[in-house]
Amino acid sequence: MQFELSLEFIEHLQDAILKKDVAYLQAQLKELYPVDIALVLNRLDVEEANYLYDIIDEEIASDVLLEMEEDKREALLATFSTKEIAEQLDNMESDDAADMINELPEEIQDEVLSQIEDIEQASDIADLLNFEEGTAGSLMAKELVSVYAHETVGACIDEIRKQAESVDVMYAVYVVDENEKLIGMLSLKKLIISHPLAKIEEIYDADIISVKTSSSSEEVAELIQKYDLVVIPVIDQLGRLVGRITIDDVVDVMREEAEKDIQRMSGITDDVDSNDNIWRLSKARIPWLLVGMCGGIIGSRIISSYEGQIHLRPEMAFFIPLIGATGGNVGVQSSSIIVQGLANNTMISEKIAPKLLKELSVGLINGIICSGLILGYNMLISESWALAATVSVALFTVIICASFLGTFVPLTMHRFKINPALATGPFVTTLNDIIGISIYFLVGRLLYDIF
Amino acid sequence: MQFELSLEFIEHLQDAILKKDVAYLQAQLKELYPVDIALVLNRLDVEEANYLYDIIDEEIASDVLLEMEEDKREALLATFSTKEIAEQLDNMESDDAADMINELPEEIQDEVLSQIEDIEQASDIADLLNFEEGTAGSLMAKELVSVYAHETVGACIDEIRKQAESVDVMYAVYVVDENEKLIGMLSLKKLIISHPLAKIEEIYDADIISVKTSSSSEEVAELIQKYDLVVIPVIDQLGRLVGRITIDDVVDVMREEAEKDIQRMSGITDDVDSNDNIWRLSKARIPWLLVGMCGGIIGSRIISSYEGQIHLRPEMAFFIPLIGATGGNVGVQSSSIIVQGLANNTMISEKIAPKLLKELSVGLINGIICSGLILGYNMLISESWALAATVSVALFTVIICASFLGTFVPLTMHRFKINPALATGPFVTTLNDIIGISIYFLVGRLLYDIF
Repeated sequence: MQFELSLEFIEHLQDAILKKDVAYLQAQLKELYPVDIALVLNRLDVEEANYLYDIIDEEIASDVLLEMEEDKREALLATFSTKEIAEQLDNMESDDAADMINELPEEIQDEVLSQIEDIEQASDIADLLNFEEGTAGSLMAKELVSVYAHETVGACIDEIRKQAESVDVMYAVYVVDENEKLIGMLSLKKLIISHPLAKIEEIYDADIISVKTSSSSEEVAELIQKYDLVVIPVIDQLGRLVGRITIDDVVDVMREEAEKDIQRMSGITDDVDSNDNIWRLSKARIPWLLVGMCGGIIGSRIISSYEGQIHLRPEMAFFIPLIGATGGNVGVQSSSIIVQGLANNTMISEKIAPKLLKELSVGLINGIICSGLILGYNMLISESWALAATVSVALFTVIICASFLGTFVPLTMHRFKINPALATGPFVTTLNDIIGISIYFLVGRLLYDIF
Repeated sequence: MQFELSLEFIEHLQDAILKKDVAYLQAQLKELYPVDIALVLNRLDVEEANYLYDIIDEEIASDVLLEMEEDKREALLATFSTKEIAEQLDNMESDDAADMINELPEEIQDEVLSQIEDIEQASDIADLLNFEEGTAGSLMAKELVSVYAHETVGACIDEIRKQAESVDVMYAVYVVDENEKLIGMLSLKKLIISHPLAKIEEIYDADIISVKTSSSSEEVAELIQKYDLVVIPVIDQLGRLVGRITIDDVVDVMREEAEKDIQRMSGITDDVDSNDNIWRLSKARIPWLLVGMCGGIIGSRIISSYEGQIHLRPEMAFFIPLIGATGGNVGVQSSSIIVQGLANNTMISEKIAPKLLKELSVGLINGIICSGLILGYNMLISESWALAATVSVALFTVIICASFLGTFVPLTMHRFKINPALATGPFVTTLNDIIGISIYFLVGRLLYDIF
């Protein structure tokens, strides 16, 4: 039942396309869900995809289009006339149609919109195009069933029957007052088990969570998760019901957010994936590499100021990587715990001091363990007591400093409304590298004078 | 409408608990959703929580319990009698009740189970306890409405009316044959708009995606996301319908997976959060710190084998951090792109060669840019042409090597069924550090001989 895309399968299809074997292709596609056909189209070149798209069952063609990768879809749509694009949009839910219009070249957007046959659909899409990306308005769909509180269950079921065509999936019916203001909801289950003559106002649930069109998509995702919802109604500034957002759209937002966080941690600036072209991949990575290099250059200036010391005691150079790496690791560990706590809202207090104290305690324990172990190692292997003492004291200090910075930097960024995930990646590592080296050589100069 | 937990609010509640001001507490709690009350309980000590819990409306008390943090809930439940726990479990959905029993001390689990009044609920919970954690069986709930294909819509609605109490949220009705085998589903919408005398077999949707009880929770999450489902039925090995999993449980699985990945990348082994105690936090971090230190020690051995060279040319030491940091950054960037591609299934081919080629091309571009810039810098600032050449040649080689390893390591781990996310963190950084230093000093030895 589950479809596994294989290279052989794609090759068979390509063969069939070349031979124009429509019967074979139809038989193959019939077994597949839209999302699986989209996976196939993503792997074909644009002429092949165009040929195959014409063969797809009309009922699911627009779903297939929606599931394709953005650049592949763009290429495929470029082979369509504006009339053909409009036909596809007519079969979509309004939110998906609006997203797709936004992807089209600006010069044809109006033309496509004007060619949509269903006037109501066209006007819904035009409405949605006004909302800024990243807001609830841009995520919502206009298709929903609403009823007035004074109506009966029977009338409500008639209304659902009428609208059944345009609303694909339905979880609830919304209840509005005479001014179209949202006042509650009614689950389909409640509707089914209630008497047809029962009044809506007697059975509806007035305890309803909604978002404004201007709410951010993160806020929507948070509410849906927190209150275990599958759909959330959207209201305008006057409290009037204007749309609804379903959980599948929110799951996409969540996944994108998680991916962006991982990219930020890895020092990648743009939203890229492994299928992007080489130039885009290079461009997304170079900024943080350059930041890291600047850190390296600053490090080199610091070390060069100790040139005489290195000349006298070359063994000081041996442990530069150990100090740098451990500082970097500790910093990333601390900041990632803090960033996660901020993202999950599990940290009740935004007070920085207790967090710092806790991280410093963890740093203290791990610092003692690490510097103790390295002291043992150096006493076994090296003849220089000064070196052994220097490395351990410096390592301990670096771990404490890195714990401090790894906590302080993201908390401070959060307070100044900068995304703290930025702080968990190359930024903290670079900072800790520089500080680590400074501490190491400073400690070295002091301790060599003593021993 | 949205609740923001503030310290003042908690303090007011604590005050009222101390004064036993039940009226005030009830008024405050009345406004809150179960999840918000749980947030409050999480912040109280166990006596306060116990006092407040008794005041909560009975209807939502078990929901509040479910939303609490695990350790806080454990502490609260420890103050309950087994009879009291059983009462709470009786009000939960079977999957939640089973999860909660699993959290209880083993010696009281059987006693609690035997004290659940509703025999059907007790037997459902006992069934669910048999499934291994991380499987669909352990995620599913037993509450669902199923109908036989030969029944009518009217009979089906009667059945829903009967079961309405036990099934909290309902999205669909499942259709089974005379052997209880799952053969299809019927959306509530379809049920509402169909004639009461219509036969189920005429209107149901046979095209249904299901999972086996033994499927992994990741598989469940993948299917639900891919096919935009809100609920998925679970079947046993004979194809019989045994339960269903709703999207809210899957969203939790997804979020946990994303968090675990970020922790793996940050070099944290256990599942910890910023509220855990200092010892747990230290223990979760020390393993990768030690791995990083071993890398640092190997680095120190490599550098020490060039001690003579450093003595002659201390300036060689200046750029150790630059080489190490850049290699680490490039490696993490490469591996994170690959790991993400593997996680999203966006990489069609598992062939390693083309991926390597692409990453090496990206490495080539960024390597030329970085080593070109550092060459310019060194020619401006340093008198040593040999050093300038060494740093640039080594940096370029390190970037290429790190691109190679950052691609090769996670792909290979994936092939051997090891979680590739492990490779994006300290492991790749440490490996690249060691290789970077080896290359740097090797190049230095060669080039100083030439210049």
